[in-house]
Amino acid sequence: MFNLNSYLVSKREQVNSAIDEIVQDAPNSSRIIDAMRYSLMAGGKRLRPALCMAAAEAVGGKAEDALPAACALEMIHTYSLIHDDLPAMDNDDLRRGKPTCHVAFDEATAILAGDALLTLAFQILSSIEFTNKDRASKLLTIVNKISCAAGYQGMVEGQMRDIISESSRLTLDELEDIHSLKTGALIKASICSGAILGGGNLEEIEQLEIYGKNIGLAFQVTDDILNVEGDPALLGKAVGTDKIRKKSTYPSIMGIKKSKEFAKKLVNNALQALDSFDNKSDPLRAITSYIIERKR
Amino acid sequence: MFNLNSYLVSKREQVNSAIDEIVQDAPNSSRIIDAMRYSLMAGGKRLRPALCMAAAEAVGGKAEDALPAACALEMIHTYSLIHDDLPAMDNDDLRRGKPTCHVAFDEATAILAGDALLTLAFQILSSIEFTNKDRASKLLTIVNKISCAAGYQGMVEGQMRDIISESSRLTLDELEDIHSLKTGALIKASICSGAILGGGNLEEIEQLEIYGKNIGLAFQVTDDILNVEGDPALLGKAVGTDKIRKKSTYPSIMGIKKSKEFAKKLVNNALQALDSFDNKSDPLRAITSYIIERKR
Repeated sequence: MFNLNSYLVSKREQVNSAIDEIVQDAPNSSRIIDAMRYSLMAGGKRLRPALCMAAAEAVGGKAEDALPAACALEMIHTYSLIHDDLPAMDNDDLRRGKPTCHVAFDEATAILAGDALLTLAFQILSSIEFTNKDRASKLLTIVNKISCAAGYQGMVEGQMRDIISESSRLTLDELEDIHSLKTGALIKASICSGAILGGGNLEEIEQLEIYGKNIGLAFQVTDDILNVEGDPALLGKAVGTDKIRKKSTYPSIMGIKKSKEFAKKLVNNALQALDSFDNKSDPLRAITSYIIERKR
Repeated sequence: MFNLNSYLVSKREQVNSAIDEIVQDAPNSSRIIDAMRYSLMAGGKRLRPALCMAAAEAVGGKAEDALPAACALEMIHTYSLIHDDLPAMDNDDLRRGKPTCHVAFDEATAILAGDALLTLAFQILSSIEFTNKDRASKLLTIVNKISCAAGYQGMVEGQMRDIISESSRLTLDELEDIHSLKTGALIKASICSGAILGGGNLEEIEQLEIYGKNIGLAFQVTDDILNVEGDPALLGKAVGTDKIRKKSTYPSIMGIKKSKEFAKKLVNNALQALDSFDNKSDPLRAITSYIIERKR
């Protein structure tokens, strides 16, 4: 019987120790490194790295093959949280139960730490074995997938629309567009990167992209649900904030019950996309259920 | 007789039209694209792209070979200006004679536009001909050179130190360190990227790195001098601001006269590094003199 919890713990430890080695703590380390490490080590779930490594395994590769991409993805995810939390954006003081980066340091340092983490993602992807031309070509493809997903046609555009539409009533389509840009694109890129580094063929990558699209959205619907009925202690952040901000969410548009049904439907779509995969994709299957059942 | 002005104009036009095509204006284009274009098209000198393309030519390649790197470098340079101008950083309202991005739009948009431009740099470097494995390996090397130069061991660290040391008295070594991180690293990477894409060998690249290190510093010393005795109308920004901010600069540490001598010495070092190159490196030679003679 596959144990998701110990799987996630082991992947998290692998990623954490790789990140710890990449952004090294030193007695006289610079303020920017302190701020990067502060946010990197704030207890993230490491969901994107886990998905990336699980995708590599699903296509028959080793999780380790995907480790550079897994770390790069976590750098990008962390940078996006730091910048989103800034006073000029969502103005959040607390993240994962700890003061946000600009509160713990200051605004200038938080902006720069975010910039540095985003840049570091591409440094990581390009610093390993680029003398192997076959691998170089794969890594460059991943640089492209991740930069497309993170940039002005992906995550950044999602955050921009999210800010612009704050407290205005969105249609379901508009909401889905924002989520697929803001979180979906990078989750899809995580899975796709893992599949490429694991040696997946085109058909496998295509199926995993469908999988990724569905769990990305399921993840966001669940986030919206947790903001209504989650436990602040487990979440490490306040709940009910979407309602206070009059933010359009799945629960606010379709109600809690239908939101849960929708999340379940997305999870089923995701599982279906894995039909042609053997039991090496069990971690991906297990993560799928975890995504809508999680409490944080 | 080589005409630098028409050379720079032709390179600038080449880069501008490439940038115009990459970040396309559209009737219903998003706010983020508007902000990116606003800052990209604000009349920059395109010095980094020119250096990049001139380096490709110096090693016997074509300027066009280096165009993707040239555009990527300008994206990164522009992002760094947008973020540096933010209220939490240098708090500048004017850049190249026009309102800065956060003044023309707002802070959130400026932060995101910067993020998007930084990300786009890597999208550009990875989106062309990466099916050609030889070229993929070169481009990945360039992704690495540029991300190292731009990140927490380069430009971002330089900006962090610059902010921390604001209004404190620096030694000459500390000042040189800040500049070599904040502007030198990316200028060196510009030249290096061009040389790689132009097909330069290791020895040529090494010489060009020495060249780059020297002109990078000469550029900064000249910037400091222009802040003392430049013409605000030509510069497109106020002068005397370093003195008001009690910023350590070359003129404040060694005086105007010695600063000019130092800039000249750096230019001579740079020219010496080009000794083994033929007349295809004339553009680089001409740019070297321009760097300390420029009025803006």
